Amino acid sequence: MSEWFILVALIAGVVAILIAAYFARIVLKKDPGNERMIEVSGYIEKGAKTFIKVQYKVLAVFVIALALIIMFFIQSPKGSIVNWEQSVAYVIGSVCSMLAGWMGMYVGVKANTRSAQACTKGVKAGFDVAFFGGAFMGLAVVGSALIGISIVYLIFQTPLVVLGFSFGASSIALFMKCGGGIYTKTADVGADLVGKAEYNLPEDDPRNPATIADNVGDNVGDIAGMGSDLFDSYVASILAAMILATFLGFVDPNNESTFIVFPLVLCGVGLISSVISIYLIKWKGSEDPGKSLNYGTYIATLIFAGLAALFAFLMTLGATGDIILKIWKNYVATLFGLGSGILIGFTSDYFTRDDKKPTHNIAESSKEGHAVVILSGFAYGLISVAPAAIGIVIAMVFSYLLDGIFAIAMAAVGMLSIVGTIVSNDAYGPIVDNARSIAEQGDLGEETIRIADRMDSAGNTAKAITKGFAIGAANLTVIALLFSYNEDAKQRLFDLGLPTINLSLLNIDVLIGAFIGVIVPALFSALLILAVQRNAAKMVDEIRRQFESNPKILKGEEAADFTKTVSIATKGALRELILPSIISIAVPLAVGFLFGVAALGAFLAASILSGFVFAIFMANAGGSWDNAKKWIEDGNLGGKGTEIHKASITGDTVGDPFKDTAGPSINTLLVVMSLTATIFMPLFAALSPFGLIIFPML
Amino acid sequence: MSEWFILVALIAGVVAILIAAYFARIVLKKDPGNERMIEVSGYIEKGAKTFIKVQYKVLAVFVIALALIIMFFIQSPKGSIVNWEQSVAYVIGSVCSMLAGWMGMYVGVKANTRSAQACTKGVKAGFDVAFFGGAFMGLAVVGSALIGISIVYLIFQTPLVVLGFSFGASSIALFMKCGGGIYTKTADVGADLVGKAEYNLPEDDPRNPATIADNVGDNVGDIAGMGSDLFDSYVASILAAMILATFLGFVDPNNESTFIVFPLVLCGVGLISSVISIYLIKWKGSEDPGKSLNYGTYIATLIFAGLAALFAFLMTLGATGDIILKIWKNYVATLFGLGSGILIGFTSDYFTRDDKKPTHNIAESSKEGHAVVILSGFAYGLISVAPAAIGIVIAMVFSYLLDGIFAIAMAAVGMLSIVGTIVSNDAYGPIVDNARSIAEQGDLGEETIRIADRMDSAGNTAKAITKGFAIGAANLTVIALLFSYNEDAKQRLFDLGLPTINLSLLNIDVLIGAFIGVIVPALFSALLILAVQRNAAKMVDEIRRQFESNPKILKGEEAADFTKTVSIATKGALRELILPSIISIAVPLAVGFLFGVAALGAFLAASILSGFVFAIFMANAGGSWDNAKKWIEDGNLGGKGTEIHKASITGDTVGDPFKDTAGPSINTLLVVMSLTATIFMPLFAALSPFGLIIFPML
Repeated sequence: MSEWFILVALIAGVVAILIAAYFARIVLKKDPGNERMIEVSGYIEKGAKTFIKVQYKVLAVFVIALALIIMFFIQSPKGSIVNWEQSVAYVIGSVCSMLAGWMGMYVGVKANTRSAQACTKGVKAGFDVAFFGGAFMGLAVVGSALIGISIVYLIFQTPLVVLGFSFGASSIALFMKCGGGIYTKTADVGADLVGKAEYNLPEDDPRNPATIADNVGDNVGDIAGMGSDLFDSYVASILAAMILATFLGFVDPNNESTFIVFPLVLCGVGLISSVISIYLIKWKGSEDPGKSLNYGTYIATLIFAGLAALFAFLMTLGATGDIILKIWKNYVATLFGLGSGILIGFTSDYFTRDDKKPTHNIAESSKEGHAVVILSGFAYGLISVAPAAIGIVIAMVFSYLLDGIFAIAMAAVGMLSIVGTIVSNDAYGPIVDNARSIAEQGDLGEETIRIADRMDSAGNTAKAITKGFAIGAANLTVIALLFSYNEDAKQRLFDLGLPTINLSLLNIDVLIGAFIGVIVPALFSALLILAVQRNAAKMVDEIRRQFESNPKILKGEEAADFTKTVSIATKGALRELILPSIISIAVPLAVGFLFGVAALGAFLAASILSGFVFAIFMANAGGSWDNAKKWIEDGNLGGKGTEIHKASITGDTVGDPFKDTAGPSINTLLVVMSLTATIFMPLFAALSPFGLIIFPML
Repeated sequence: MSEWFILVALIAGVVAILIAAYFARIVLKKDPGNERMIEVSGYIEKGAKTFIKVQYKVLAVFVIALALIIMFFIQSPKGSIVNWEQSVAYVIGSVCSMLAGWMGMYVGVKANTRSAQACTKGVKAGFDVAFFGGAFMGLAVVGSALIGISIVYLIFQTPLVVLGFSFGASSIALFMKCGGGIYTKTADVGADLVGKAEYNLPEDDPRNPATIADNVGDNVGDIAGMGSDLFDSYVASILAAMILATFLGFVDPNNESTFIVFPLVLCGVGLISSVISIYLIKWKGSEDPGKSLNYGTYIATLIFAGLAALFAFLMTLGATGDIILKIWKNYVATLFGLGSGILIGFTSDYFTRDDKKPTHNIAESSKEGHAVVILSGFAYGLISVAPAAIGIVIAMVFSYLLDGIFAIAMAAVGMLSIVGTIVSNDAYGPIVDNARSIAEQGDLGEETIRIADRMDSAGNTAKAITKGFAIGAANLTVIALLFSYNEDAKQRLFDLGLPTINLSLLNIDVLIGAFIGVIVPALFSALLILAVQRNAAKMVDEIRRQFESNPKILKGEEAADFTKTVSIATKGALRELILPSIISIAVPLAVGFLFGVAALGAFLAASILSGFVFAIFMANAGGSWDNAKKWIEDGNLGGKGTEIHKASITGDTVGDPFKDTAGPSINTLLVVMSLTATIFMPLFAALSPFGLIIFPML
């Protein structure tokens, strides 16, 4: 009977997509503002579409190549001669992820100017437009993920084919995240270095040739990139639980798919909770947009707890005592996961708020100059890893005590269950950021810009929480994927009549895998940062060239040439995303071939550990530098234009690629590496289960 | 018979101490220069002695407390009622380490002014004095370590008592390294932030009130701190090999202690090689001090390879075929270790030389401003971890293939065998740094200062290599300690009739231990950086206060008040070293009690992995920022005083606590945590082998 419960997920997915379409219609109907605003918004839209189109063309080649590799080199989980099942699922996953990114970006670029225009009527009006734009993205992402997984599972009846779907979503997310992250910070850093630091132009000044590129970056990096990222984590968390349920052999005598279906059901419930919370936020309204967004997160959590209990109860009907107990245990584990996600979000909030000690101290340290701002931000960023790690450890410990590793996977599902709300809140940020910029460029007046500013700062607060949440969720997900990799490998080696996988840290192959794994997130971050730095330098040269060759631009008498800067950002991002992307797929393959299945497992584990440290550190250090600078700009310590302010800008500029390029890409890196390992493991198991370099047991 | 081979180590140790004393005499006999130089050198000596004395007083209490805990809470390895053996060995180890630090510092502060004076006669004369000062430290450190270990082993006949000696050395090293590192950078950063950045004073300007404190810092941080650090690693590497030989039961039918004695013999041989290389450097002389130092490293390596082969051959006499083969295999492993140490040293050299791409690019990026210098240095620092990790992995793989985990421990011994030469080259650096400063303050004229400058820059080059070497060696050592922890734990649990230790990454306790372990090096680094930042801010306030309250100081008409700045650095360093030191002992204890013996092993493994990443990253990023700045100061990109130069100073200032406080302290942290775990493990095994939080096997 429990198979039918998948309908909960499927129906929730379809409903979410319909509601999303309805939100899109509402947004599109709004007044896009004056001519200048439409023009600016048109530039942004064109820039974003150009980038995504070029990127999707490259991705199409990549997807086809990988689909063929999967088809012909990986053994079919259904026993077919060619592995068309995983290959097709892979293509579907890729397409779903691309679609979700595209749609979010599309509505985002429409919502920005409309939200700016609505701000002329007040906070509430402006908030609604931006919020609906964000909610569209949230519901579209989660809806398409649930529909995709449900259909693939219903057709193929095994989570191992869903693995193909998840790998598709993940490989796209990697490109979107790296490319978008490089794009957005190339423009932002370039604009800041020349415009703010050298010419004292304000943020979003239309005279700055990189302003449009910066706006485009918000859309391709923060909306499309972030959407694919959470799509990816979301799918992977469900997949990990489904695989574990299969391999651990959780058999309900009546109905053996109960625990395979359970994560999907809970995610369906989470989506319904997100939809309700979105309506409640809208209905409640508020003059304080920041509060509204956070209120949405709590409300969604509470509704989820209630609704999930109801559906868990429905699933216990007709089940035996053991199974009933197991369902309830795992229900509680999802709540642990969700609670710990919120805890991690709040840690991030604490470390990045200007009224709390860390960011306050960082701002104060600007008095000692550029170097000291960097040192204190760096140090607090590292310290912030500790409480977040405690959050993850608590979630792991308590889930495990409830029902072992499956419950850990369910905790990850729980963390991500309300991802609809999280994505909505997160996509709200870049929309209002753009709205603010358009209000400035469209001359909507002081009052409207002030309102847009307030909305923007609410977006930043919400973002700190959602970012911590996203990292925590991705981390728990990859831990669950590590367990499912191991269970899958065990089964595969058993089938081949080989000794089982042993991940003891004292085995030399495991230790070597771990050594390589621990450096990958560091190397990957470094490459992304250098990419931003190289591109930003080009952007700086171009901006300087424009200002110097045509003094009328600075006087505001002639328009800057936006197309050049947009083109620099586009080309740079596409060129620079290649090396990091290759690393994230090639290194796990190399470790698997050279050192075998166990080394690959250890590689994953170590990369998860160090990836967690780097992701949290970079996100929080970047966030607190940003807010320290904003606090000074609010008039503290002498305010704008002082040496103290300049030092704080240095912190913010260093933090930009930390928090918006490298830090958030690590999530995706970890998921891609885990899925690459899992999907190619049958190949390693068949070719070289102990690696091409075989260590004798001495 | 092989027991007698310990005499090689003992005699080498005694000879080294005698030669060291001879070097000290040579140095002390030299002309200390003019009155002003003697005065400045006197201030430095007084400052250094005051700091070390106060620190040793605090340490004395700590050592006594820990000696009592070891005596009454840890089971005696010799079966005595109270564990007086390890306790006494612990005290001896502590005292040896303190003595080595004290002596090195004492001769260092005498050598600085004498080397400055000798510079008036040319490079060779100046080099000799500084080099003998450094060589004194090198030989004193290694000699006292070898004598200490040999005697403790000869008396107690078990490496488990030597463990106490090693723990003593290690806990002292931790305090010396953290305290010295905080001290030296408090003064350096403080002096730079005000003197260089605000008042454009040159380095070592006598008008800068923090100049003397900066010089004192070189002695307590770079000489005494670094000496205890390498003393610590050296002893630990020998210990790990001795413990493994014991627990792995390598029994030579004639003579069962062959492999326990083998590491000691090789270290004795290494010490002899160091002595010979020191004489060859002296005899060869050179107008290029940098080449001389590196020449010493190669020569010591070659002599070691030859002499070690001879002694290995002597040990094979009368042995059976199996044992003969085993001796030769492990001889080769030591060469692998030494080779990989040099490889890592050269990676560091590559990443920090201004004529190579990374540092060159960092210097170029100064054109884009403060933030971009930071970003590129950060990124290249992270990238430099990869080749260093490959060096470690290669050493591990090949050693393991030769003779399993014992050979890995022997590779670590090999890496550290020529530590006499390494310490000599390293201690040379701060001596000439001080000599340069004294030459400036003593008005020895342009030409002499130029000579001193050349000697100083040679010290920096040598330092890049020795620092990489030290990190690599410490890392291989802690890996060997991890194995010996595991073997010890296995035996202990077996004796207690308990199931054996299982470090599989998929066990929840192991995963939790790893999660905690991976964040400790990050947290520890952050605390040290914040400590430097807080103290430097106080220093900055004091320097500004002096300049503002007495304008005559800046005009050079009145002397600055050095005692105030020295006192700020002293008090600050002592106060701030407490929390990081406590963490490094308390966290492993907490993990052991809460989660058990296996979790503690995983904790160690994960901290080794992430500690390696952070140590290499920080050392190399700091080194390349420093050299990028120096390259610009040499007149490139516009030279001193430009905005580009200012941006490069920001990089250097950020790099200071990276490369001289946090980065190098991580080595010591890892060794202390490993030894804490090993020495307290019997307690955990008896009380809570699986931790107070017990995970059911689900």
